[in-house]
Amino acid sequence: PESFGDLDRKAIDTARVLAMDAVQKVGNGHPGTAMSMAPVAYLLFQKWLTHDPSDPNWPARDRFVLSMGHSSLTLYVQLYLAGYGLELEDLQALRTWGSKTPGHPEVGHTAGVETTTGPLGQGVGNAVGMAMAARRERGLLDPEAPEGESLFDHTIWAFASDGDLEEGISGEASSLAGTQQLGNLVLVYDDNKISIEDDTTIAFTEDVGARYAAYGWHVQHVDDGEDLASIDAAFAAAKAETTRPSIIVLRTVIGWPSPNKQNTGGVHGSALGDAEVEATKEVLGFDPEKTFDVAPEVIEHTRKAVTRGQEAQAAWQTRFKAWQQGNPEAAALLERMTTRTLPEGWQAKLPSWDADPKGVATRKASGEVLAALYPELPELWGGSADLAESNNTAVKGEPSFLPASRQTKAWSGGPYGRTLHFGVREHAMGAVMNGIALHGGTRVYGGTFLTFSDYMRGAVRLAALMQLPVTYVWTHDSIGLGEDGPTHQPIEHYAALRAIPGLDFVRPADANETAVAWRTILENNDRPAGLALSRQNLPVFDRSEFGSAEGVAKGGYVLAEASTGTPEVVLMGTGSEVQIAVAAREQLEAAGVPTRVVSLPCWEWFAEQDQAYREQVLPPTVKARVSVEAGVPMGWREFVGDAGRIVGLNHYGASASFSKLYEEFGLTADAVVAAARESI
Amino acid sequence: PESFGDLDRKAIDTARVLAMDAVQKVGNGHPGTAMSMAPVAYLLFQKWLTHDPSDPNWPARDRFVLSMGHSSLTLYVQLYLAGYGLELEDLQALRTWGSKTPGHPEVGHTAGVETTTGPLGQGVGNAVGMAMAARRERGLLDPEAPEGESLFDHTIWAFASDGDLEEGISGEASSLAGTQQLGNLVLVYDDNKISIEDDTTIAFTEDVGARYAAYGWHVQHVDDGEDLASIDAAFAAAKAETTRPSIIVLRTVIGWPSPNKQNTGGVHGSALGDAEVEATKEVLGFDPEKTFDVAPEVIEHTRKAVTRGQEAQAAWQTRFKAWQQGNPEAAALLERMTTRTLPEGWQAKLPSWDADPKGVATRKASGEVLAALYPELPELWGGSADLAESNNTAVKGEPSFLPASRQTKAWSGGPYGRTLHFGVREHAMGAVMNGIALHGGTRVYGGTFLTFSDYMRGAVRLAALMQLPVTYVWTHDSIGLGEDGPTHQPIEHYAALRAIPGLDFVRPADANETAVAWRTILENNDRPAGLALSRQNLPVFDRSEFGSAEGVAKGGYVLAEASTGTPEVVLMGTGSEVQIAVAAREQLEAAGVPTRVVSLPCWEWFAEQDQAYREQVLPPTVKARVSVEAGVPMGWREFVGDAGRIVGLNHYGASASFSKLYEEFGLTADAVVAAARESI
Repeated sequence: PESFGDLDRKAIDTARVLAMDAVQKVGNGHPGTAMSMAPVAYLLFQKWLTHDPSDPNWPARDRFVLSMGHSSLTLYVQLYLAGYGLELEDLQALRTWGSKTPGHPEVGHTAGVETTTGPLGQGVGNAVGMAMAARRERGLLDPEAPEGESLFDHTIWAFASDGDLEEGISGEASSLAGTQQLGNLVLVYDDNKISIEDDTTIAFTEDVGARYAAYGWHVQHVDDGEDLASIDAAFAAAKAETTRPSIIVLRTVIGWPSPNKQNTGGVHGSALGDAEVEATKEVLGFDPEKTFDVAPEVIEHTRKAVTRGQEAQAAWQTRFKAWQQGNPEAAALLERMTTRTLPEGWQAKLPSWDADPKGVATRKASGEVLAALYPELPELWGGSADLAESNNTAVKGEPSFLPASRQTKAWSGGPYGRTLHFGVREHAMGAVMNGIALHGGTRVYGGTFLTFSDYMRGAVRLAALMQLPVTYVWTHDSIGLGEDGPTHQPIEHYAALRAIPGLDFVRPADANETAVAWRTILENNDRPAGLALSRQNLPVFDRSEFGSAEGVAKGGYVLAEASTGTPEVVLMGTGSEVQIAVAAREQLEAAGVPTRVVSLPCWEWFAEQDQAYREQVLPPTVKARVSVEAGVPMGWREFVGDAGRIVGLNHYGASASFSKLYEEFGLTADAVVAAARESI
Repeated sequence: PESFGDLDRKAIDTARVLAMDAVQKVGNGHPGTAMSMAPVAYLLFQKWLTHDPSDPNWPARDRFVLSMGHSSLTLYVQLYLAGYGLELEDLQALRTWGSKTPGHPEVGHTAGVETTTGPLGQGVGNAVGMAMAARRERGLLDPEAPEGESLFDHTIWAFASDGDLEEGISGEASSLAGTQQLGNLVLVYDDNKISIEDDTTIAFTEDVGARYAAYGWHVQHVDDGEDLASIDAAFAAAKAETTRPSIIVLRTVIGWPSPNKQNTGGVHGSALGDAEVEATKEVLGFDPEKTFDVAPEVIEHTRKAVTRGQEAQAAWQTRFKAWQQGNPEAAALLERMTTRTLPEGWQAKLPSWDADPKGVATRKASGEVLAALYPELPELWGGSADLAESNNTAVKGEPSFLPASRQTKAWSGGPYGRTLHFGVREHAMGAVMNGIALHGGTRVYGGTFLTFSDYMRGAVRLAALMQLPVTYVWTHDSIGLGEDGPTHQPIEHYAALRAIPGLDFVRPADANETAVAWRTILENNDRPAGLALSRQNLPVFDRSEFGSAEGVAKGGYVLAEASTGTPEVVLMGTGSEVQIAVAAREQLEAAGVPTRVVSLPCWEWFAEQDQAYREQVLPPTVKARVSVEAGVPMGWREFVGDAGRIVGLNHYGASASFSKLYEEFGLTADAVVAAARESI
């Protein structure tokens, strides 16, 4: 680029040297990509990225996603050079306890890191989600501004490696980005033809550019990662392309210019060794004796990014203040979103249901909750992985989030719409939801069948690790889905999801529990939650007779007290099996056994209660306990104790009507009664 | 096609009518695709598929995979027509308890079903795996035969829907198939532009043919699913193309010719309703009053497939007998593979390790086991999702499974090679492994980091459901991997994998346990197993002092008995934490507390032991128990009981050296001792 001079060249080489030194010091890590991607990363951070290093949370900033998180040094070194607060000692502490420079970038841990990456492909999905969120937020806040002139117009930049693009999740997300015509997204593909098993010819020979063209992307090729002018031109063209996402296929040589290790798998994930580091420094004209050697004029030059950023933000703030005054409602919404604060009184809009033995499916109740909340909470939006009607995730009359030309007979909408259509892409849905949550203050939900939580698990884990307030609407939550059979019937999923640290797994027992569950989920803004909802109708319990559904907020509560007030046995369960416990209680009480029923919709919330409350619900003195849940027993022993019994399923389901399955598999009141008698 | 006449046309329309009737009878299901795919399915089963309906296990048969398992009627009706033993009453029992016609096709349950499908995209991966297995088996049995002339040459046919091709797993598998140049694979893409949310324009607008061309596939388009002549020509061209996999993009109209419901999302997954079924029958010239109406001359005509199949098999058997005589060794191997029998004495080749406090990583021990077994077990093969060196899955000197032109400096080999290179595609790896196991008697393993078992979970579940003997080599199995940090450190994965019914999860504590674990896994041929292996070195226990590693085969055993023979406390653990229990035992014994250590590498195998053995290992009288494992506590309460203590992790890891992490997170002998004192 014209504006670039010798200092910039030296800064780029300094980035390579720092990457080598940092890995060499700790003895492990990934130097190769940080060396070969140094030019494009530097050009982005110093010229193209709209950002203010002194305010990493400036809402108008461009976002940068490093999908190949193993190359964290690519990012750390640019954050250091640009002045985000990372200093040389942080780079020297790479991959050590308590440092700001962990092995993979962690959002919330290091200023300037926009998302936690490492599991490959996730970052591409995050970037697509951020680009979608940017469009939605513009629609909420500033829909009338001409293109490119809004305060909220910005660009999402992402880097991805061979591994990222081999992972199916990135293909899913990229196909969706093509459909969505995300003109605010620019992806740089580091085409270095090397992965851990060396030359990618053994496993990855496709034409990536042609694949992205097939997705509907704008595709450019730059044949030399050292050719800054061409990269610069490609960035310009990508930014100018506002009707399609852009990919730049950038040919680099991993580990360049290491004389003996460039272009090998070895330089991907291992330190170069002292001799090779020295040899490379000589090639670059650096003193091979010195480590972490940064010329003062280089850092002085690169830190001008701070001033530039502050000037950019100052100019923006002037316009922003004017916008705030002219748009008080939107400004108030933005303020709420920025602080993740809900409007006063929103809970009053939650629906409730009268007692009804025939009942309603909790998935349907969930849909009614969403419909009731939509007018109150414009930040709430979501959709499904092609199961809108089954998941009850689409609120009637709401516009779809779609380019105008993608509207269909069934779905109208526009670019600022609210109903998301993820396609049959659960994993990308999870990563896109993460990107949406990372981008800003909207609250997004996404639906699929509970059994397919398996497909999105990689993204769910990252939501939990990043503490993102996204909500999964997992319906068809048991063998109760019936005829679709074992491939579609979750059995092990309750346990498997409860095992994820930081995820709230909530399985309401009736419609009113569903409403309280949604309320509690929305009141939490620092963690993901998954709702497990029934396909089949569940009776709506008579709350004049039973405990209040408010107990859901505590994770577990006494639904039905023993007639004597002093239970001889406690029955407990979740979701559609709570009614079985209630029926068993009737039998036991009729036989003179005082029986309590506890509904335990969310173990994580229950664990947060104090011991007194927990023991009030599950009195330590009552050792006779039975759990009933249509899943593997794993985990229930904590609640039922040594003397308790667990009524569950240790095997897969089958294809038949749900009532037949419950009967054949022994999930019945009779079985619970028998178990209770054993436990007593 | 020339040979097709009116009876064939009528048979195709009969297939549509049966699909409508079957769904209408049970009241739910997926009629639309079975109606529109009836022509291509019929053409395949009656003309192109090499099969013998009277012998569904004929090893030379072509394989057919219905990736869109929800359209199970597409397959069931052809099995009925071709004479696989399915009869009208089976179609009438669709989706009901105990029937041969469950909602989704289940292998082993219905003759002629080659794989269990339903979770979308998996079937594409299975088909790719079958095509790879076919090449490998040809290489093992008949490598010298000219192309197309081997007894073992056959074709893998698969049908896939929009949803299948939206899922990332199919993209991963298809990219791999392109690299592998699988000329024996033909995929028909049912391009009906309708999914559950109706018109796919809202979510799936890519050019699928162009995407597959980018993968290196041979791409054909047929614009009308009713145009049998064009489909026939496309099949011929696809079969003639032996250097690339083929995809036929077949435009169909879902639900055709239903006058009011064709081409809608409604006909995808719901019964048409009596009126529409009748109207459609009228269009087709069927009596609207009749259901399950099959003209005798139609079924007589289609069942000629049985005679044709028997003739084909008879001809093949003649050649096969000659081959057997001329190739006794290969014939013996085939016999072993067909019956999944291991050769006598193979276990003698397993390595063992002397006591060594410094020790060896169990991933390395696993690699040594594989190297020792490779000469004995030609059916054993496998690879990694781009982590060969980390997973220790590639045996030195063995050829890679690669087209000759794909060899690299690092990896030589050929089309019949043994080391698999899956690329960074864990989910496809899982589905491909399933396809390999389904195809025949080879034993395949695949490696990645344990944390990325999340990415492949959809396929792991299906392996367990299908009871396939595939083995996952999951290394880097805890925070013990160190610096790569929380994205790469499994925490919840032990619990999540143990939750899967039918999967054996095995976490050996040292090298000798690793060898017994591999032996036991290979001796089982009816279920998948996952090995969790350490990155870090683990001490090799002194077996002259401790219990024999043979105990691994029982899932759990007494590793170190209390000095008195009567333990006051039992410590237990798995994998790298067993050494912590052993160190804690030393402290406790030194303090006068008789302490037993139990190694519990595989809960599933332990559960299979009789109660006497289990109580011998964990005496019911000893209530003081402590478990130690670097994962979530979930599940351990079953072993430690109400009085026990669980030393584990309830949170994510961090980026630092592994020794630092164990110390900071309290996974230490001191912590176990303290817990033991509490428990006592």
